[in-house]
Amino acid sequence: MSTMNDIISFIHKHESFFITTHLNPDGDALGSALALGEALESMGKKVRIYNHDGTPATYRFLPGHERILEGPPPAEAPRSALILLDCNIPERAGIEELVFADAAVIDHHATEMEFGNPRWVETRNPATGLMVFRLIKELGVLLNPDMAINIYTALAVDTGSFRFPNTTADCLRAAAELVDAGARPGEISEHLYQDWSRDRFELLLQNLSSVELHGQVALTVIPQEMFTETGTTPSDTENFVNFPLVISTVMVSALMREVERDIWRVSLRSKGSVDVSKVAQGFDGGGHMNAAGCTLVGNLQETKERLLSSISSLPEL
Amino acid sequence: MSTMNDIISFIHKHESFFITTHLNPDGDALGSALALGEALESMGKKVRIYNHDGTPATYRFLPGHERILEGPPPAEAPRSALILLDCNIPERAGIEELVFADAAVIDHHATEMEFGNPRWVETRNPATGLMVFRLIKELGVLLNPDMAINIYTALAVDTGSFRFPNTTADCLRAAAELVDAGARPGEISEHLYQDWSRDRFELLLQNLSSVELHGQVALTVIPQEMFTETGTTPSDTENFVNFPLVISTVMVSALMREVERDIWRVSLRSKGSVDVSKVAQGFDGGGHMNAAGCTLVGNLQETKERLLSSISSLPEL
Repeated sequence: MSTMNDIISFIHKHESFFITTHLNPDGDALGSALALGEALESMGKKVRIYNHDGTPATYRFLPGHERILEGPPPAEAPRSALILLDCNIPERAGIEELVFADAAVIDHHATEMEFGNPRWVETRNPATGLMVFRLIKELGVLLNPDMAINIYTALAVDTGSFRFPNTTADCLRAAAELVDAGARPGEISEHLYQDWSRDRFELLLQNLSSVELHGQVALTVIPQEMFTETGTTPSDTENFVNFPLVISTVMVSALMREVERDIWRVSLRSKGSVDVSKVAQGFDGGGHMNAAGCTLVGNLQETKERLLSSISSLPEL
Repeated sequence: MSTMNDIISFIHKHESFFITTHLNPDGDALGSALALGEALESMGKKVRIYNHDGTPATYRFLPGHERILEGPPPAEAPRSALILLDCNIPERAGIEELVFADAAVIDHHATEMEFGNPRWVETRNPATGLMVFRLIKELGVLLNPDMAINIYTALAVDTGSFRFPNTTADCLRAAAELVDAGARPGEISEHLYQDWSRDRFELLLQNLSSVELHGQVALTVIPQEMFTETGTTPSDTENFVNFPLVISTVMVSALMREVERDIWRVSLRSKGSVDVSKVAQGFDGGGHMNAAGCTLVGNLQETKERLLSSISSLPEL
């Protein structure tokens, strides 16, 4: 495994970079990419930032988001050195058809295979943004307000704004420095947590009203009709799965969204040491101990039973 | 106005302290009182901690909470020196009938009258807990894990866990030091945000389903019947008023709770520079720019109209 110093050598060796990150990007992915891109440019490097799926509406406040290229990967990209952020194999970024002469990885997820050289992966780090923060400082680049906003957002999204158990003292110290450098916590929170449409609010109410408690498991379901009735889409359900966890006795929350007829995208969240990534893996999905996801195919009743049966077999429940 | 140094002199001058804080105490009030009490005891002082209303269930995880005295104020209290925390007049603490020879105030709310000497009030400080943090360090007391948990909770409660606009770099730096000293953000968040009963969850759903949007104002109502039906009490509504603010167009959220027949306790929250404390003051209530409260008396329809009329006259809407 490589270190931050290997990444620094990689950056000094190249002049032109292609920075990309995972499909369905979140704030840690996008904020890290934008901040690193700007830092490299301030060193005189050429940078292109790409995301296969583009920038979700929620993140269109991030400084520089309009420069993120999207769609099919550009054929000429491999003339630059690749930096893969917040994921660690090309398939996660939708660039598996491109062949790069040189590729670096910066990520905090469990490694999937030995792609990239250097390959700097810290699985205990709460956010890729925190790694990028340290890297930028080590490169001697001065943090400007735009970089600060991008990195602060990255930290906030991956730690639930410093509420999740992965919140470390280093993460809070970095957040303090980022506020000094120009990030405004109140404004960032408003973008992250208070940009809902009225329809999305109605969808949440309908979704939460469907809650079924099975022992320590809360299950909520959004069939396609609920999206149609409320004029919403599956992307409107971000964060919904966290709500039932407010109930003290609920240790696992599962949200089933019908993305196509009888195709159910399942989000899983847990408290404490209940490891829902095991459930997700059983259905060819993945994730972390407290946050995972997978896809199930079948009619609602049968799918629900398979899912609940898998969850209830967790040793911690 | 006094400074922290005046408080330090006051502490060195006395041997026995009576620490109290406001009615309906929150995490900033209780956490500050418990941390300061323990710090003073580590200096060899005698300390009693009192709160007229006692410790709400949510805060019964705070180390030392079981030592907080409640009920009618103890007649012998004035033999000690008073430290009034997170409020600045005796009436707010329900101790207006006691006469103290010496009284100090440590608070971050707007001053109401010149009670206390010394009187250390920093209205721009996000939390009394942050003032207590600095004070404890300046006193040369080593932060132990119990103090760290109490102060971290104080900061978290008054900044919405670092989401509100009042979150400063100093506040985040203090939070980092408190984690180093033994506070665990994930565990504290679980106590603060995930200890609801199933009934309280049902109350939230019923409350949010009642939402009325009047332009940029969201109004929700909890009549007494809703408490009865769901087996809940007005104390179960903490934080409810924040939920409608997730809608991007909602600038003010108002929650009316019927605490007795035709007596409505109103909570007001706002975004940005919309100052709801003006509305509250118009009904003899009080608070901050973005969080205020008051009480209205009358039947629902008439009370609602008076409230909405006052809110809609705010210049920022």
